[in-house]
Amino acid sequence: MFIHHVYFWLKNEDSREDFDKLVTGLRKLSVVNTIQQFYIGRPADTNRDVIDTSYSVSWLLFFDNAADQASYQTDPIHLKFVEECSSLWKKVVVYDSVNT
Amino acid sequence: MFIHHVYFWLKNEDSREDFDKLVTGLRKLSVVNTIQQFYIGRPADTNRDVIDTSYSVSWLLFFDNAADQASYQTDPIHLKFVEECSSLWKKVVVYDSVNT
Repeated sequence: MFIHHVYFWLKNEDSREDFDKLVTGLRKLSVVNTIQQFYIGRPADTNRDVIDTSYSVSWLLFFDNAADQASYQTDPIHLKFVEECSSLWKKVVVYDSVNT
Repeated sequence: MFIHHVYFWLKNEDSREDFDKLVTGLRKLSVVNTIQQFYIGRPADTNRDVIDTSYSVSWLLFFDNAADQASYQTDPIHLKFVEECSSLWKKVVVYDSVNT
């Protein structure tokens, strides 16, 4: 199991239009065939010191293994997503993890 | 769907013993009955500028809804985990997300 969790911060963080564009782009991206499960989220309504609620969109992917995630990075569908959507965000943070 | 993703940074980041203690604590914590799915991970062997590989342990939980996550926070099993394990870490970052 390989878990790839990406958090996006939109340039225009209050723009519903930009939020929707990014979510639409992620839905198109979700068809990459090595993706086993995907979850598109927004910050929950929780609020403690340790919680980072500043991001705009959460993109959580499950792959079977590291090789599948690597191939996703260079998949033409992924490259097209980056080309079409990367102007929307100002910051991305990725956490990749594997089973302990 | 409520996704609760916690990243832990160990005080003794090179200690296999402390890593194992934290993982053992999380496995005990995983029995909280509102948890639908849980995944315990460590950083994958990926390396790009946007990837944060500095954390020690990833703890990813799925709940049915926000109320279940809230009840998990005050569950005696969770409080006992914090009591037993919080001395192990120096930093925790949490990202809570809900469906878009």
